[in-house]
Amino acid sequence: MTTDTAQSNPPGARFPTLKAPPPDILRCACIELQVTDLKASRHFYVDVLGLVVTEEDERAIYLRTFDEFIHHNLVLRQGPVAATAAFGFRVRSNAELDRAETFYRELGCRVERRAEGFVKGIGDSVRVEDPLGFPYEFFFEAAHVERLAWRYDLHSPGALVRLDHFNQVTPDVPKAVEYMTALGFRTTEQISDDQGTVYAAWMRRKPTVHDTAMTGGNGPHLHHLAFATHEKHNILAICDKLGALRLSDRIERGPGRHGVSNAFYLYMRDPDGHRVEVYTQDYYTGDPDNPLVNWDVHDNQRRDFWGNPVVPSWYTEFTPVLDLDGKLQPIHEREESREIDVTIGADGFSYTRKDDEDMPDWKKGEYKLGREP
Amino acid sequence: MTTDTAQSNPPGARFPTLKAPPPDILRCACIELQVTDLKASRHFYVDVLGLVVTEEDERAIYLRTFDEFIHHNLVLRQGPVAATAAFGFRVRSNAELDRAETFYRELGCRVERRAEGFVKGIGDSVRVEDPLGFPYEFFFEAAHVERLAWRYDLHSPGALVRLDHFNQVTPDVPKAVEYMTALGFRTTEQISDDQGTVYAAWMRRKPTVHDTAMTGGNGPHLHHLAFATHEKHNILAICDKLGALRLSDRIERGPGRHGVSNAFYLYMRDPDGHRVEVYTQDYYTGDPDNPLVNWDVHDNQRRDFWGNPVVPSWYTEFTPVLDLDGKLQPIHEREESREIDVTIGADGFSYTRKDDEDMPDWKKGEYKLGREP
Amino acid sequence: MTTDTAQSNPPGARFPTLKAPPPDILRCACIELQVTDLKASRHFYVDVLGLVVTEEDERAIYLRTFDEFIHHNLVLRQGPVAATAAFGFRVRSNAELDRAETFYRELGCRVERRAEGFVKGIGDSVRVEDPLGFPYEFFFEAAHVERLAWRYDLHSPGALVRLDHFNQVTPDVPKAVEYMTALGFRTTEQISDDQGTVYAAWMRRKPTVHDTAMTGGNGPHLHHLAFATHEKHNILAICDKLGALRLSDRIERGPGRHGVSNAFYLYMRDPDGHRVEVYTQDYYTGDPDNPLVNWDVHDNQRRDFWGNPVVPSWYTEFTPVLDLDGKLQPIHEREESREIDVTIGADGFSYTRKDDEDMPDWKKGEYKLGREP
Amino acid sequence: MTTDTAQSNPPGARFPTLKAPPPDILRCACIELQVTDLKASRHFYVDVLGLVVTEEDERAIYLRTFDEFIHHNLVLRQGPVAATAAFGFRVRSNAELDRAETFYRELGCRVERRAEGFVKGIGDSVRVEDPLGFPYEFFFEAAHVERLAWRYDLHSPGALVRLDHFNQVTPDVPKAVEYMTALGFRTTEQISDDQGTVYAAWMRRKPTVHDTAMTGGNGPHLHHLAFATHEKHNILAICDKLGALRLSDRIERGPGRHGVSNAFYLYMRDPDGHRVEVYTQDYYTGDPDNPLVNWDVHDNQRRDFWGNPVVPSWYTEFTPVLDLDGKLQPIHEREESREIDVTIGADGFSYTRKDDEDMPDWKKGEYKLGREP
Repeated sequence: MTTDTAQSNPPGARFPTLKAPPPDILRCACIELQVTDLKASRHFYVDVLGLVVTEEDERAIYLRTFDEFIHHNLVLRQGPVAATAAFGFRVRSNAELDRAETFYRELGCRVERRAEGFVKGIGDSVRVEDPLGFPYEFFFEAAHVERLAWRYDLHSPGALVRLDHFNQVTPDVPKAVEYMTALGFRTTEQISDDQGTVYAAWMRRKPTVHDTAMTGGNGPHLHHLAFATHEKHNILAICDKLGALRLSDRIERGPGRHGVSNAFYLYMRDPDGHRVEVYTQDYYTGDPDNPLVNWDVHDNQRRDFWGNPVVPSWYTEFTPVLDLDGKLQPIHEREESREIDVTIGADGFSYTRKDDEDMPDWKKGEYKLGREP
Repeated sequence: MTTDTAQSNPPGARFPTLKAPPPDILRCACIELQVTDLKASRHFYVDVLGLVVTEEDERAIYLRTFDEFIHHNLVLRQGPVAATAAFGFRVRSNAELDRAETFYRELGCRVERRAEGFVKGIGDSVRVEDPLGFPYEFFFEAAHVERLAWRYDLHSPGALVRLDHFNQVTPDVPKAVEYMTALGFRTTEQISDDQGTVYAAWMRRKPTVHDTAMTGGNGPHLHHLAFATHEKHNILAICDKLGALRLSDRIERGPGRHGVSNAFYLYMRDPDGHRVEVYTQDYYTGDPDNPLVNWDVHDNQRRDFWGNPVVPSWYTEFTPVLDLDGKLQPIHEREESREIDVTIGADGFSYTRKDDEDMPDWKKGEYKLGREP
Repeated sequence: MTTDTAQSNPPGARFPTLKAPPPDILRCACIELQVTDLKASRHFYVDVLGLVVTEEDERAIYLRTFDEFIHHNLVLRQGPVAATAAFGFRVRSNAELDRAETFYRELGCRVERRAEGFVKGIGDSVRVEDPLGFPYEFFFEAAHVERLAWRYDLHSPGALVRLDHFNQVTPDVPKAVEYMTALGFRTTEQISDDQGTVYAAWMRRKPTVHDTAMTGGNGPHLHHLAFATHEKHNILAICDKLGALRLSDRIERGPGRHGVSNAFYLYMRDPDGHRVEVYTQDYYTGDPDNPLVNWDVHDNQRRDFWGNPVVPSWYTEFTPVLDLDGKLQPIHEREESREIDVTIGADGFSYTRKDDEDMPDWKKGEYKLGREP
Repeated sequence: MTTDTAQSNPPGARFPTLKAPPPDILRCACIELQVTDLKASRHFYVDVLGLVVTEEDERAIYLRTFDEFIHHNLVLRQGPVAATAAFGFRVRSNAELDRAETFYRELGCRVERRAEGFVKGIGDSVRVEDPLGFPYEFFFEAAHVERLAWRYDLHSPGALVRLDHFNQVTPDVPKAVEYMTALGFRTTEQISDDQGTVYAAWMRRKPTVHDTAMTGGNGPHLHHLAFATHEKHNILAICDKLGALRLSDRIERGPGRHGVSNAFYLYMRDPDGHRVEVYTQDYYTGDPDNPLVNWDVHDNQRRDFWGNPVVPSWYTEFTPVLDLDGKLQPIHEREESREIDVTIGADGFSYTRKDDEDMPDWKKGEYKLGREP
C-alpha cells in the first residue's frame, strides 16, 4: 500500500462539471431492502442480529441500531424479488433537499420529492434515480426515538450500534468517483493496478473510511450494507450465535481484518441473499488532506490483511436495485478487468511480499484455498 | 438522565453577539504541555504509554498516536512549572486563520499569528488568549508523517490511536458554552441541577461527544487531555503495565464506564500532575439535531455509570495554563456551587435511583468510599 | 511479592496429625445460600446475572453456569436469615464419601450422611460441621444436565461459565491452612507480614489458584462465592447492565485486577448482602512444586494490582453460616492483627514501591480514597 | 454433536492389558522441535510470537510462555530435517519415572533413562519410542524460573501464556485411544461416523479438553503444538502483527471457533512447516464422569463452528518424528477412510443442519471454498 495526498481527489473527464452545488450530506443513514419473506427476514435481523424494532406492520419492519436516535437505519419491505429500494442519506436541513433536487435535475436524473416522506418515520424527502442507476434518498426530517446506547440491559453479545456504510457495484469506478466527488464525497482508499485500472474506491462524508464504496462490477447492484459494533469480540459473538443456531451457512466471508480501512469485519448473507457486513474500528478521515491509501490489486493483504482468501461468491453475487417505480434496474457489464480475474486464478496472481521472486503456484495447491480456473 | 433536543444550544446573554464568523474547526488536534522534567515525562509518555516519537531535541518531544498522520498530537516542552502552553485545533484551511484572527480581535483578545508556526511540524498558525484565559492555537499546515494504523508490529497492548479531547476548568460554564457555541461548537451532554446550575458541558466539532469539555471550577485550568484506544481491554492493559512497573500510583481514577459520553475511561497523572485520560467508545453526534443529554448532578451514575466514587483530587487538582508570553494565567474562583460539594459530602447527596426514599448515609459508612466532611 | 517453593505447604502444630486419609476432592462444585426473599434473589441471579435455572419450586432455585454438566452450582433457598447452608465439594467417587466420614469423625466433627442427598439433583452425600465451624458437603452422584458451553444463543454479554471458588472468613488462618492441607488442599498464594502473621491464604484442589480461600477475620463466615467468565469484557458487561438497570449500588468493589491470583475481578452484593465475585484468568497451579506466592500485607498492589483502594465493607461485612440443624454458627473473633488495620488507616500504611522513602500521608489526603481513623 | 457419558472410555481389543500401572502424568509440558534454520525459527518464535528465551546457545533455544515456572515449554534445536524430537510430559515425582520405565518395558518399547536429563533445565528423565512410534519424554525435575504472569510490561498484544496441548497423527485412532487410556488419559471429545470409524480423539490429563489429540492419518507425525492466550483478541493481534510484518502467509487456517473443544483458534506454520496453534477458552473436564462429546464427521461445524472450510494442507501436511537415535521414524498409512475424503469433496458431504434435504453442491460452487475432486 502507498499513501499519496496529492491524488486523493483527482480530476477526471468522465463526469460533467455541474453548476449546481451538491446537498450537504451528513451520513449514510438508512437503507430500504425489498425482501421476499418478511418473516424470515425478521428472524435474521431481529432474533439473530438483535436490531431494535422501532415499528412494524404486515408489509414492513423499521429497524435501528443501539446508538441511533432517528426512526430507523433499515427498512425491510415485503416484495416480489430481493432488491434495494433506497440508499438513504441524511442531509443537514430541509434546504439541502432543494439543492438535491437542483443537482440531480441538472444531471438529467429522474427526481421525486414527497413532503410526507416515502417511508414511516421520515418526513420531507427526495428520491432520485442517480446517474449510475441507484435509487438515492435524501432527507433531514426524522422522528426521534430513544438512543439505546446506555441500555446495556438490552444489548446482546453482538450488539450492532451504528449503520456504518453501503457498498455499491457499478461498472466504471472512476466515473462513479467523479460523480460522488461532485456530490461532496471524498475518496479515502482505493484498489488499483499499475496500468491505472481502479477496482474499487471508498468514499466518505462523515469522517470514517466510508459512507459508501464503489466496487467495480456489473451494476447497479448492492454489494452490501454494514453495521458497526463496539469491539471485535462482538463480531465473533455473532458468529458463535450463528453456529449455536445451526445457521453458520449465513456466514459468507470472515471474520477477518481488512487491509483497506483497517477495520475488523464479517460478511453474512440474509435469507434473500442480501449481504450484510459487521464492521469495527476504522480510523478518522475528516481532515481535507487526509492521505489517500492506494492498494495494489495484486497485494494479497488488500482485502484480508491476514491473507485469507476472498470467497468467489463475494466477487460475483450481488442484489439488484429498484427504480422509483419499484422495477428492477437493468444491469450494465463492467468492461475493465475484474479483481477476481487478476488476483488468484487463471491469469492472475497475488503476493504477500511484493519483491518475492517466487510466487506460490495455485496449480500445485500452494495457495490456501485458491480459486481455480 | 434526560434528553432534550430543543435545548441543545440555548441562547444566552453572558456572551456578546459577534459579527465575525468563526473559523471552521476540524478537531482538537494537539496540545503543548510544559513539563519540569523532560526525561521523566518521556518515560511516562513514550516508555509506559507507548506514544510515537515523531521528533525530539533537548528541550521538547513531539509525540503522536498510531492513527495520526500529522506531525504530532502532544508536545512536551521543558519549563519551570507544569502548565499548558496551547490547546491546538486544526482548521480546514489557511483561510480559516484569517477568520480566527478577526473573530478573536472582535472579542478584544490578544492574538498572535506566525507564518512559520509556533512549534516544529506545524506551519502558519494563530495563537490567542481567549476570553476565558486559555491559550488556543489554530492551524492547518502540518507536516505529514506515516499513519501507523496498520503497523501492528509497533502496537503495544495499550496502543493509543487518537487524541480524542481536552477538558478545561473555568468558573462560569454557561458563559463558556456561549463562547464555544459562537466558535462553532455544539453541546452534546451536560451536568446540571434543577435550580439551573450547570456544572459541566461537553462540546464538539468532530462528530464525537466532545473535542473539549467545560468543567466548572477555579480557572483557567487544564483538567485533562484524552487519548483514544480501540477497545476496553487496551485500557485495562495500561493499568496492568503500570502495576507491573510499580507505577500504579499514576492511576487516579478508574477504569470505569462514564455515564456522560457512555465511554470507557481511565485517568492517570503524569510526573508533573498533568491528568491524562484514556477513553474509548462514545457515539456519533454529527447530526444537527443530535439530542442533548442532560445529567442530574445528584445522579450517582453521571460520572461513573457503575456508581464508583469520584476521587476528590479529580475535582480539585488541575494544572494551570500559560499566556502567550509563557507566564501563568491568574486564577478566577467559581462562584456557583461546586459539584464536589453538592454530591456525596457534607451538605449534598447522590442517588442511584431517583425515587428511592432512603438515601445511604455517609456518616454510617453506607457509601462505598465517600468523601467525608 | 516473592515466591518460595520450599514454604508452599509448611508443617505446623495447630492441627492434629490424622490417621485417616482425606477424601479425593475434585473441586468446589456448588454452594447453598439461604436467602430471605427468594423472588428478589431470583431477579438478581437469573434476570441480572443470567445463571441458568435447572429446576425451581416455591422454596428453592437450582442454578448452574454455562459450562456446567451437573445439576447445579448454586442453590438459593428461602429462609429466615441470610446465611450459607453448605459449601459443596465434588469427590471422585462414592467411595470417597466413606473416607470423608472417617476423616471428620476422627476430627470429632458432627457428620451426617444421606444416601438420597440433601438437595435435589445430588445423590449420596456427606455433610459435616468442620473444625472451623463451616458446613462442608461432599458428593459424587449428581444428575447430568446439558452443558451449554456451545449454546451461544443463550449467552448474555456477561455469561458466567463456571463456579470458580469460595472464600471463607476464619479467625486463625494458619490453623485453617493446616486443616485444609490435611484435607488435601495446597496453598498457592498468601498475604503475610514480616512478623509472620498470615492474613489470608488461597488453597486449591483443581489446578487453579483456589477452590477456596481462608481470609482472617471473625468467623466462621462466608466472604464470597465466585463465578468465572471467559474474558474481561464479560465482567465489564455485567457492570454496564447493572448501571442500565439502575442497580449500580450492587457493585461493591472493582472491577479490577487482583495482585493475588492475577485474575480480573468484580465484587457485588446480592439482595441479602451475600457477596458474589466474578473472576477471570488466573493461572495453572497443578504441579506439586507450584511456587507459593507470598504478598506483603503492606504492598498496596496485593489486593488490587492497580492500587485502587479496598472498600472498607469488603473487610468487615460477611454472611454467617449454618450448622447442620440450620442454626447460625456462633462467631469467634480474630485475635491477630487485621488487614484493614495494618494497611491504609490509623496505624498502618501501604506502599506502591517498597523502598520509597516517603509514604503518602492519609491525613493530607494523599491516598486516593483512604479509610480514615 | 451428542454427549454420552457411558461411552467416554470404551474398552477395546486392539491394545494389550498391562500389569504395570502408568506413571502419574500432570500435563503436556514441553516439546522439542528439530529445525533446519535456527535463526529463522528464533525470529518466528521470539520476535514474532514473543515467547520468552530462558536460555540459548548456538545449537538450541529454550523458550517458555508467560505463566510457566519451569525452564521451558519449547526447545528449538538445529538439525538436518524438520522433525519432532520429543513430546514432553511432566509427572508428579521422580518415582513416576520408575513406573514409566516399567510400563513401556512391558509394552516392549525402547526406553532410555538419563539422570542428568536429555536437555538443559530438566533433570532425571525417561524417553521412549512408544507403541505408535512417537518419542515421548517423562520428567519431574526442572529448573524453576520466574513466572512472568504479572510482568505485563513484557507482554505483547498476543502474549502466549501456556503450552496447552499437542496433536499427533497416527493411522489407527481407536488403538491410539486404548494406549493412551492405559497411560492414564481420558477421552473428552471425538469425531466419528455412524459406521463406527473414529477420525480423531481428544485426550487429557490436566482438566482441559486435551493434553494431546490423536488424529487419524499417516503417521507417526506431529500435527501441531498449541499455546494458550488469555483472550480471543490476543489471537487476533497475532494475525494483525503477521499482516503488518508481511508474514500473513504463515497463517494456515483461522482464526475461528472450534466445534470440538469450543475453543477459539489460529493455525500457523513455522519456517520449517511445523504447525503451531494458538488456542483459548475450552472448558473444565476434570470430573470422572465428564461427558464425552461425539461429533459426526459430516457435521460441517465440527472443526470450525462457523462452518469455515478446513484448508486441505491442514489435513495432509505434517512433520515427522525422530526415534531415540535422532533418525526419522518410518510412516505407516492410514487404512480407514480419511476425514478429508468423506467431508466436502469427491465422494463426501457435510451438513450445517443434519436434516436438511438438499445439500449444497460443490460442483456448482455452493460451498464457500470447498476442496474439489
